[in-house]
Amino acid sequence: MTTEGFRVLEEKSLIEYIKATPSLASKLGNDLENLKVKEVGDGNLNFVYIVISPSASIVIKQAVPYVRLIGESWPMTKERSYFEATALKRQYDLSPKHVPQLYHFDRSMSLIGMRYLEPPHIIVRKGLVAGVKYPLLAQHMSDFMANTLFYTSLLYLTTTQHKAAVADFCANVEICRLTEQVVFSDPYKISEHNRWTSPYLDADAEAIRNDKVLKLEVGQLKSKFCEQTQALIHGDLHTSSVMVTQDSTQVIDPEFAFYGPMGFDIGAFVGNLFLAYFAQDGYADDRKTYKEWIKCTIGDTWNLFHQKFTSLWDMHKDGPGEAYLHEIYQDTELWELVKQKYMIGLLHDSLGFAAAKMIRRIVGVAHVEDFESIGDPVKRADCERSALDFAKMLMKKRRNFNTITDVLSAV
Amino acid sequence: MTTEGFRVLEEKSLIEYIKATPSLASKLGNDLENLKVKEVGDGNLNFVYIVISPSASIVIKQAVPYVRLIGESWPMTKERSYFEATALKRQYDLSPKHVPQLYHFDRSMSLIGMRYLEPPHIIVRKGLVAGVKYPLLAQHMSDFMANTLFYTSLLYLTTTQHKAAVADFCANVEICRLTEQVVFSDPYKISEHNRWTSPYLDADAEAIRNDKVLKLEVGQLKSKFCEQTQALIHGDLHTSSVMVTQDSTQVIDPEFAFYGPMGFDIGAFVGNLFLAYFAQDGYADDRKTYKEWIKCTIGDTWNLFHQKFTSLWDMHKDGPGEAYLHEIYQDTELWELVKQKYMIGLLHDSLGFAAAKMIRRIVGVAHVEDFESIGDPVKRADCERSALDFAKMLMKKRRNFNTITDVLSAV
Repeated sequence: MTTEGFRVLEEKSLIEYIKATPSLASKLGNDLENLKVKEVGDGNLNFVYIVISPSASIVIKQAVPYVRLIGESWPMTKERSYFEATALKRQYDLSPKHVPQLYHFDRSMSLIGMRYLEPPHIIVRKGLVAGVKYPLLAQHMSDFMANTLFYTSLLYLTTTQHKAAVADFCANVEICRLTEQVVFSDPYKISEHNRWTSPYLDADAEAIRNDKVLKLEVGQLKSKFCEQTQALIHGDLHTSSVMVTQDSTQVIDPEFAFYGPMGFDIGAFVGNLFLAYFAQDGYADDRKTYKEWIKCTIGDTWNLFHQKFTSLWDMHKDGPGEAYLHEIYQDTELWELVKQKYMIGLLHDSLGFAAAKMIRRIVGVAHVEDFESIGDPVKRADCERSALDFAKMLMKKRRNFNTITDVLSAV
Repeated sequence: MTTEGFRVLEEKSLIEYIKATPSLASKLGNDLENLKVKEVGDGNLNFVYIVISPSASIVIKQAVPYVRLIGESWPMTKERSYFEATALKRQYDLSPKHVPQLYHFDRSMSLIGMRYLEPPHIIVRKGLVAGVKYPLLAQHMSDFMANTLFYTSLLYLTTTQHKAAVADFCANVEICRLTEQVVFSDPYKISEHNRWTSPYLDADAEAIRNDKVLKLEVGQLKSKFCEQTQALIHGDLHTSSVMVTQDSTQVIDPEFAFYGPMGFDIGAFVGNLFLAYFAQDGYADDRKTYKEWIKCTIGDTWNLFHQKFTSLWDMHKDGPGEAYLHEIYQDTELWELVKQKYMIGLLHDSLGFAAAKMIRRIVGVAHVEDFESIGDPVKRADCERSALDFAKMLMKKRRNFNTITDVLSAV
């Protein structure tokens, strides 16, 4: 948790830093005389710069010791940068087509240098607001999730490897506490950070604070988040942590990574697609077919994930993973039963976490552009209420759904 | 994982060691001229000595780098001794009436010096074989479990404290792997280490290896054991890890300690009481009323645990614990609902782990004196079969039981 040698960079000092850092300078073709720097951080936590030389571009990300969205009044260890770099590298190794390459990490500066995702890459959420279809999104995201989650779980790792990795990421605790607070706690109580489309949703926000069954469920999900070291999860896999073009999908910003429940990643992505779905009715143009595309993408994401994840499991069934030893589970019928039980459990977790992520984006501290871009507050509140009602149902009834098709029919 | 400075002690070198170690010498009243040493280790792993001076006695425990029961062919890190000392100290702090005091720990020697539990303290299992009632056993064990489990869980700890402790104990991985193998894997497959009362239980052992539903359940329990960091558990809380008199109960040997599911401790103790229960029919004298006493003790253990654990939770409901924040759960009805759900989940876990612990003691590597002391193999096999059948039912149907009374009625 060094603070020695740390200083917040701005344009000029950043250029000096790059000039003094061969691993970054070389990525810019050592063409350092006319560097341009653009600050593009639109996230809640960090400063992000695109650095452009005449021959190439890179991204520099620096963590500061507070939550950028809130300001210095909400301190947040900049050590998160170490976990982001570690997770980014691990995820790149496991899913190189869908994760940008790490070029450089400076722990004392909390500074990451990484691949610049060139235009037309944009944040998926912006594409969803604009009504753009990404035919490969489900394919690619299911690929990323299947690979990163399977290979970091006990289905593939030995207990020895698993516990060592768990111990490492336990130190990313401040960022886990942030999630615990803003996802699992604040929306269910009075909090100065909460906001919603007022006064239209005042009664809805209050209803959430008074919903006993919902609070019971979210408490169990919170415990699972805190206690279940199932796999190395991204930890913040919403639609602003993914950049896309028509044929590329890149997952960024894994600073929330730790060993947690797989369903938290799947749920984050799927839950944010549901938010996009419910926001569509608030936009001026006709989004009927686009809404259908979002539903299909949700269905495909889960179904393809299911297929890829279980294929990896089959492929490595007599591999190093110690959870289900081949010698014990080799009977064909039993093997199918094991996978079926595991995947149903994972679906239920994913739906619960999806619901929690939806609710917190409507009545918690951090909102999403999907709804924020609806100018008319009455219209916005209507869309948000539909999303809230669906999320509440999903969290309470998640164990009744056996397939994603059943879920989509309930929308 | 130092090996530097390690040497296995025997009587003479042990006495030299004590003379050179003030914290041990002082506990013997510095009366070191006529020390007597008795090796009393009857466990599966370590060497244990009672050291007696004319004025006092102490216990010395040394871990060797292999499984004592098996021999040097099964290596096992002697670093377990560090975790034993750490857990012993923590448990003593949390439940001082039921844990012997740690006097000395030497990490490089893997050597613990601790309180000698004077006669008539005996291992509970031996008392159960002899048919001796311990009227305070349930009271004391529920006390130990409620205190050690509650105060190391997120019901009392902050996430920061919890994750730091989890990380620490992740390094006790070799001993966790031993449990995974001998409890959750070996009994369900062919293994050179397995044994059972042959030929009488040959078909029963085979039936376990072919029982798909059972293997599905034990797989889920294994995952929970590996992944759920619910509390600092003793990790080996069977009836040979407890010493008793009519008014004292002392829990020893926490070298298997790590952050795992609470139900594994509760289940270990309860499961071993069930083993004792089923063994009674194999003894020469009439054990009818004694069997009733064991059943009562099982019922009391759970019910008192339930009562004490929830009382601690009530007492600290607005304490530091971050799992269920008072602000969110203060509604009386909701608060009761939260506790009810939590405790039912814990009961189901406990029953599942109890069953796993029973099965492994009948068809796995390490057997128990309860059955081993039945000389007639036909009689022994009958008792073991009853226990096995009950354990199989318990593991499969555990979620159908809402109270321990229901469980006891099913015996």
